[in-house]
Amino acid sequence: MIEQPKTGGAQGYLRIATEEAFAPPKMLDLYRKLLADGYDDPGFASLWGFYLGSPSPRATKIIERLQDLGPQRIQYMDDRGIDRQVIAVTAPGVQVFDRDTAVAMAREANDMLGEACAQHPDRYTGMAACAPQAPAEAAKEIERAITKLGFKAVIINGHTKGEYLDNPKFLPILEAAAALNAPIYIHPTGMPKAMVQHFLESGLDGAVYGFGVDTGLHALRLIVSGVFDRLPNLKIIIGHMGEALPFWQYRLDYMQAAGQRAKRYDFLPALKQPVSGYLRDNFYITNSGVAWPPAIKFTQEQVGVENTLYAMDYPYQCDVEEVITLDAMDMDAATKKKFFQTNAEKAFGL
Amino acid sequence: MIEQPKTGGAQGYLRIATEEAFAPPKMLDLYRKLLADGYDDPGFASLWGFYLGSPSPRATKIIERLQDLGPQRIQYMDDRGIDRQVIAVTAPGVQVFDRDTAVAMAREANDMLGEACAQHPDRYTGMAACAPQAPAEAAKEIERAITKLGFKAVIINGHTKGEYLDNPKFLPILEAAAALNAPIYIHPTGMPKAMVQHFLESGLDGAVYGFGVDTGLHALRLIVSGVFDRLPNLKIIIGHMGEALPFWQYRLDYMQAAGQRAKRYDFLPALKQPVSGYLRDNFYITNSGVAWPPAIKFTQEQVGVENTLYAMDYPYQCDVEEVITLDAMDMDAATKKKFFQTNAEKAFGL
Repeated sequence: MIEQPKTGGAQGYLRIATEEAFAPPKMLDLYRKLLADGYDDPGFASLWGFYLGSPSPRATKIIERLQDLGPQRIQYMDDRGIDRQVIAVTAPGVQVFDRDTAVAMAREANDMLGEACAQHPDRYTGMAACAPQAPAEAAKEIERAITKLGFKAVIINGHTKGEYLDNPKFLPILEAAAALNAPIYIHPTGMPKAMVQHFLESGLDGAVYGFGVDTGLHALRLIVSGVFDRLPNLKIIIGHMGEALPFWQYRLDYMQAAGQRAKRYDFLPALKQPVSGYLRDNFYITNSGVAWPPAIKFTQEQVGVENTLYAMDYPYQCDVEEVITLDAMDMDAATKKKFFQTNAEKAFGL
Repeated sequence: MIEQPKTGGAQGYLRIATEEAFAPPKMLDLYRKLLADGYDDPGFASLWGFYLGSPSPRATKIIERLQDLGPQRIQYMDDRGIDRQVIAVTAPGVQVFDRDTAVAMAREANDMLGEACAQHPDRYTGMAACAPQAPAEAAKEIERAITKLGFKAVIINGHTKGEYLDNPKFLPILEAAAALNAPIYIHPTGMPKAMVQHFLESGLDGAVYGFGVDTGLHALRLIVSGVFDRLPNLKIIIGHMGEALPFWQYRLDYMQAAGQRAKRYDFLPALKQPVSGYLRDNFYITNSGVAWPPAIKFTQEQVGVENTLYAMDYPYQCDVEEVITLDAMDMDAATKKKFFQTNAEKAFGL
């Protein structure tokens, strides 16, 4: 019989899970209200209509677990051998609300998470929510959450009403994160209205495929916008094995260079590096949702051993079998320790 | 000095390039007319506005080479060591035209390619164009091209005005291909109008990323529609290293199963296999545009040695350095021969 994973590092490393989610009950109430009011965002309606409306065990358990930051969560971590969760408000966070609601809810979510982190400093690390709808306030809230609440990163739950972080209006957010040495985790959310139709009509808009497409786009938009040439110490984290960008690297490099030589898009700046150079220098990649050694090793080899981090994706995906599989990976002990523990300690400054 | 690749198989295998393109001059004239008439398809306008409008060497050379099926193409093949090209009408083929124009142009393109194949039977293999706008006629044209012209596959250049092959209206095309044992190559094209906006505004709509996203979606739509449970001998070919689906397999399997258990999309049928099972049983994957041994080996290992085929992507990507890189891959001789030669011979019945 296979032994259950335990916390404490007896296996030679701590397990730090870096893409774990929570939801303030009030935020879920606001989602319910948006759904009831017919908020015109089919990707959001597909995602939260399912989780808040489905009687399935998957939906009901996830809604229950998302709202808990207390003993139940700690028990789940203990049962799965997770020493520390790096926790963020779940997607879409506050990014679907009007500006004032978003600003207030981000602050409230951070206070709630901050309190939980203060109660469990050896088990929880916080990521700062913010309202991109109000970029200057977002920058201030990020600073507050990092400096006052002790958070170590920023969560951006994908596009904000169809706008991505490469939009110049969001520069204060990027600058604040870079100045505070806080990486920005770009998490998937429901696909934007201008993209979702052909995914939604085929049941492929969610985590199964659409999330990855849209989050990969988000990361690439930042890269081709040249923002990393202007803010070289800005760090971005993407999950789900880098939303397949590690596998796309050759084509990304070839076609970005071909387009640049041919001046196909006159609004795009010349980049100092190939796309893959930014993945290596400015990105951390977590394996959230992908407990699959071949993809983890590919990313370690083709992006970097130092770039590749462990994540679980609690409570969306938290099977103990996945922990057991990853513990058993055929990988040298030093690399495995980087993956599970020390890369996260460096990325988040733990 | 590295020796230039030569045709003839002295290296232990023939090189069969399986995703090579041509364009009838008349079809390009029809594209020019669509562009001039302001045809409302931003993905098409971005793609063909560039190739037909840009003075860059990339665009002008590609337009010249696309239209040639004669000595210049053979010379390029000789210079790059390509023994055989499997050739298809370039994207979007006839799929942007009105129904009657599309039906006529598909026939004309097939006749033109058929003549070239008859002149160079040892160098060219044809893929059948068809007009999905007229599914019954398309099935007839596929049958004519396979049985009368000796073509060995069908080319579908992505969505047809925002409709994908999983749409039941296209079933005659799938049935004809399956009945004739002809694989269908799904090639990328400009992203559909309902998807392209956020890719186009960031210069990421083309081969650099958007193509892969949309073609991956196309393949997945077929899988989750259950068509392979109804037509188990239907074979689909996708290029660009499987549009990253090999790398996504774990997440596709996990989330498709989770959605099925939770009955998230009531219109989706229960599948007999996980998504990865269909990739293995019903797909060939070519490395067009991806002359990168790590991704090729990953696909061989995680989808299948028998599923993974060589392609060049002439004239869009045809650097001799890529042939040299792939010849030098650290791979056993038997596997390399399957990759370059015998898998294609089986897939196309050569």
